[in-house]
Amino acid sequence: MSATDEAQSQIPTLPASHSGIPTYLLEKAQRAKQAVFDTRTKGRNQRQRLPVVPQGIERDVFMQALSELKDELGEENVEINDKPLVDGWYMEHPNTHDMMTILDEEELVASAVVYPGSVEEVQKIVAWANKYLVPIFPISMGRNLGYGGAAPRVRGSVTIDLGRRMNKIIDINPEDYTCLVEPGVSFYALYEALKERGYDHMWVDTPDLGGGSIIGNTVDRGVGYTPYGDHWACHSGMEVVLPTGEVIRTGMGGLPGNNTWQCFPYGFGPYSDGIFSQSNFGIVTKMGMTLMPNPGGYESFMYTFPREEDLAPLIEIIRPLRIAQILENVAQLRHVAQSVAVLGRPRSEFYTGSGPVPFSILHEAASKSPIGDHTWAYYGMSYGPPEIRAHKLALVDSSFRKIPGARKIDPSTLPADDYFFSRDKIAAGIPDIHELRWVNWTPNGSHIAFSPVSPIRGTDATALFKLGKELHDKYNIDFFPAFIVGLREMHLIVEIVFDRANQTKKKEALDCLRELVHEAAKLGYGEYRTHLVLMDQVAGTYSWNEGAVGKFNEKLKDALDPNSILAPGRCGIWGRRYRGRGWEMGLGKEESEGHGVGVGFP
Amino acid sequence: MSATDEAQSQIPTLPASHSGIPTYLLEKAQRAKQAVFDTRTKGRNQRQRLPVVPQGIERDVFMQALSELKDELGEENVEINDKPLVDGWYMEHPNTHDMMTILDEEELVASAVVYPGSVEEVQKIVAWANKYLVPIFPISMGRNLGYGGAAPRVRGSVTIDLGRRMNKIIDINPEDYTCLVEPGVSFYALYEALKERGYDHMWVDTPDLGGGSIIGNTVDRGVGYTPYGDHWACHSGMEVVLPTGEVIRTGMGGLPGNNTWQCFPYGFGPYSDGIFSQSNFGIVTKMGMTLMPNPGGYESFMYTFPREEDLAPLIEIIRPLRIAQILENVAQLRHVAQSVAVLGRPRSEFYTGSGPVPFSILHEAASKSPIGDHTWAYYGMSYGPPEIRAHKLALVDSSFRKIPGARKIDPSTLPADDYFFSRDKIAAGIPDIHELRWVNWTPNGSHIAFSPVSPIRGTDATALFKLGKELHDKYNIDFFPAFIVGLREMHLIVEIVFDRANQTKKKEALDCLRELVHEAAKLGYGEYRTHLVLMDQVAGTYSWNEGAVGKFNEKLKDALDPNSILAPGRCGIWGRRYRGRGWEMGLGKEESEGHGVGVGFP
Repeated sequence: MSATDEAQSQIPTLPASHSGIPTYLLEKAQRAKQAVFDTRTKGRNQRQRLPVVPQGIERDVFMQALSELKDELGEENVEINDKPLVDGWYMEHPNTHDMMTILDEEELVASAVVYPGSVEEVQKIVAWANKYLVPIFPISMGRNLGYGGAAPRVRGSVTIDLGRRMNKIIDINPEDYTCLVEPGVSFYALYEALKERGYDHMWVDTPDLGGGSIIGNTVDRGVGYTPYGDHWACHSGMEVVLPTGEVIRTGMGGLPGNNTWQCFPYGFGPYSDGIFSQSNFGIVTKMGMTLMPNPGGYESFMYTFPREEDLAPLIEIIRPLRIAQILENVAQLRHVAQSVAVLGRPRSEFYTGSGPVPFSILHEAASKSPIGDHTWAYYGMSYGPPEIRAHKLALVDSSFRKIPGARKIDPSTLPADDYFFSRDKIAAGIPDIHELRWVNWTPNGSHIAFSPVSPIRGTDATALFKLGKELHDKYNIDFFPAFIVGLREMHLIVEIVFDRANQTKKKEALDCLRELVHEAAKLGYGEYRTHLVLMDQVAGTYSWNEGAVGKFNEKLKDALDPNSILAPGRCGIWGRRYRGRGWEMGLGKEESEGHGVGVGFP
Repeated sequence: MSATDEAQSQIPTLPASHSGIPTYLLEKAQRAKQAVFDTRTKGRNQRQRLPVVPQGIERDVFMQALSELKDELGEENVEINDKPLVDGWYMEHPNTHDMMTILDEEELVASAVVYPGSVEEVQKIVAWANKYLVPIFPISMGRNLGYGGAAPRVRGSVTIDLGRRMNKIIDINPEDYTCLVEPGVSFYALYEALKERGYDHMWVDTPDLGGGSIIGNTVDRGVGYTPYGDHWACHSGMEVVLPTGEVIRTGMGGLPGNNTWQCFPYGFGPYSDGIFSQSNFGIVTKMGMTLMPNPGGYESFMYTFPREEDLAPLIEIIRPLRIAQILENVAQLRHVAQSVAVLGRPRSEFYTGSGPVPFSILHEAASKSPIGDHTWAYYGMSYGPPEIRAHKLALVDSSFRKIPGARKIDPSTLPADDYFFSRDKIAAGIPDIHELRWVNWTPNGSHIAFSPVSPIRGTDATALFKLGKELHDKYNIDFFPAFIVGLREMHLIVEIVFDRANQTKKKEALDCLRELVHEAAKLGYGEYRTHLVLMDQVAGTYSWNEGAVGKFNEKLKDALDPNSILAPGRCGIWGRRYRGRGWEMGLGKEESEGHGVGVGFP
């Protein structure tokens, strides 16, 4: 049996309903995966990979430590990462790496993956990591696509895959409109549970891709597209295993016998939840989430606007409507380039020249779509009974039509598979996966995101658009901008789609991103979230008062995690054992030399 | 010149517009204050109080330290607390103590009050405190009435009165609907600034009493009565001086040159703001706050319900309406007892017997008010243009009328000074002070709050009402319950009104409160906020997993405040220098012996 066969034979396909991936995409992904896998194993002469051992520990000590852990968790719940890497996103395969890696695929890999089945087992793993000084990297489901997926920040970390066995919906409360979930519960799974129980009066807010973990998305401060879009703001109560092994429950969870853990987020005393978001201060093992009441009706709408320069006045129109919640959900204003990409067709169908696809060709490609000859498409939804919607929709209509040539698209004219209906579902709390179609833009399509925050202002939109376009041109990359309008801020989301089998393209993408982050920071824009490999750089842009916030984070880190074992480097926070040691600790030479990765704050 | 004259001569009356107190109340308060002051100084034989010196420091070292601080801040900005105590709430008098103290007035007093004029001066004070190991207690404006006012938790702390000199509205942004304020900015001051600048498109959310600090209220996680009621959820960005003197800016404030500090609360990396609420981990010197867009119309409504036992079914009706935001603001359901008290007339007008005023007499007293012979009054507001309001008001009406005998009150039938119009103003973001009228219930009226959190459920409302009534009866106290309905939780707010000149009444009130907290916790209800003297007890009720949250807080405290100088004991958190030392450190013997105050977690 070859290594290839062995790896393949381990991959049972999950039912779509469980994994949250529609069958057509599963099949397509399986074909793509096979192609990549064949190329990779061929190119590497089928070498049998040895497990990576975390820096600072002898190989045999590590192997001994792993077998000790097997005694604790059971043989089957500790998997050494010693086989060729196989993407685990949609398969029952170990979450060993980032399936969309921007580095060499073997750079940010786990030494082993472990599967705790309970909070007590998470505590055991933490105790074990402290004993052997092994870096551990908790993931919920590993589906943080575009931001690092399942990969650990430090090569050779032991990945704690919480979601595989800890995947229970512990409670759904139909009176309080709340639930309590474990890390392995996806937006799909919660949605389906509500349907199964007949709880039509409650909605799940879902992000662009519904297959990921609710906890994972929320602690990374992701957003969704109903009026409950700010997931962090909607959670209530957490259970956290600290890096020293203690378990706390935040908010009302600290009060024995309470019935308010999911009703009231704050409790008494310091409200600590926030320091467990985008950090490496604790492992979230349970989280409460509020559910949105069915608004009693809803209606998607779509407008298109002709000219690129409509962006600034349009953003000015959007701001007061969004703050007043006439525009009720986190809405998307997408450039024609992204509208073409999300058709799911390869770039090569439109253009084979060198350099980025000219906008004129994108316009041509879009001409037969609902976008027609326009440049921007706005997707939104109005909620409530018809008479309430009518009021809001009329205000939106008269406002949007101030842009000359603005067009409202009649949904009944659209083909059934139009992207509009994906946005329609998501804005109604129905998980979907259509969004990912734009990875078909290139062979072996992967993506990585640039997501700077700005006020909702025309001048800011224009400045970010200009910056993005210039640097994409410079690095030969197609530019897919969309503005995601929050409540008082917007995120420009630029997804760079790249061929993960092409080293040149990966380098261009990463170089482009680094320069984007750098130049945006000079203009006063910071990322709200970033990929593993950019975390140090992004954290470094929050440098006010000689990096006071970074030093503060380090102080908390050292107090809570004296042995620096938990997710070192996540969000740019390095414990004292790692600071100043750079790639010596296995952070990746290029990374640490190029951008001060792992050096921490001086 | 007698001590009395000297103290009096220092009291210039502030203009009402500045202090946020209507003139009629100012005058009334001044008369009451004079009476109390006369009694007190007479009773004490006009003794000249010596300044309290913080435990653990020699008197002459402390005096030397204070004069060093005067060199730093200027003579006029360091006041030793060596004169008879005078209530500083509405006067330009030092914030030396709790004007509504439940203990002996001289128990929780400052040794000195200092007035920094800048962040740099706050840093100097912190450095000074670390040098001399002096406990410092920051207040914004000291108007946290019912929860400790201006008093420090540890007797002899040096109070940092931030608000007196740091009272600037740094920015109001009419495009983003945000502002940036210093600790001395009250809800009144912000409201007036909006009016002055003609910003009618933005509202301030205001709590029951508008004269307090926006920062103070928000970091104590207070609420207001527009749809923006959750102040904590509405803030965006803070500047914090850490106990070791460094200054951080949270969220986007960490990014130099940003224009999003008040637009987007989270930034990148751990969201740390929460640990600076209800804690003693840092001194908040600036805070961003979002402003509510003018909803384009509003309309107050009031319903009354006849029977005490209507409570449970009414709460069941309220829950889904509130979660769906048909009931749009944090609303009040008030018992007839509170409706009578807020008339502002003394108890003695209604009853002179022993024991609590019988409900029958309260009903009699209310019979000529809009309450009539009913028991419960609900105050709410509907927002938006008329056609939108009509839809929501119709739903509320048909729902509320399911309670037999429910009555909607027509505002046009009410006298101009009815309490309804106070709620109407507050729900429309107009600060008011009417609420405090119930302190007239007793001579020298003061109040202290019991505020347990529960789900919005009939059974919980009934259980809390029953518990409150029984224990008030037991301790001879009039029971003034109101249910404050949040989004998924409600707070029963019980204000115990007591005569602060009557030691027996104060002891009964405190004993009652202690038993309420204890018994409520046994039923699973915890306080969301509490008075200084109850902080240890309340923190102790959050005891899940052997007090894991308390130990976690102590770990953070010791990491951030190695010398335990900042607000020791606030919210039940004691730094390592204080733990296990009880009243030896000046915490008050009765307190520390009776309830483990200052003992911290073992």
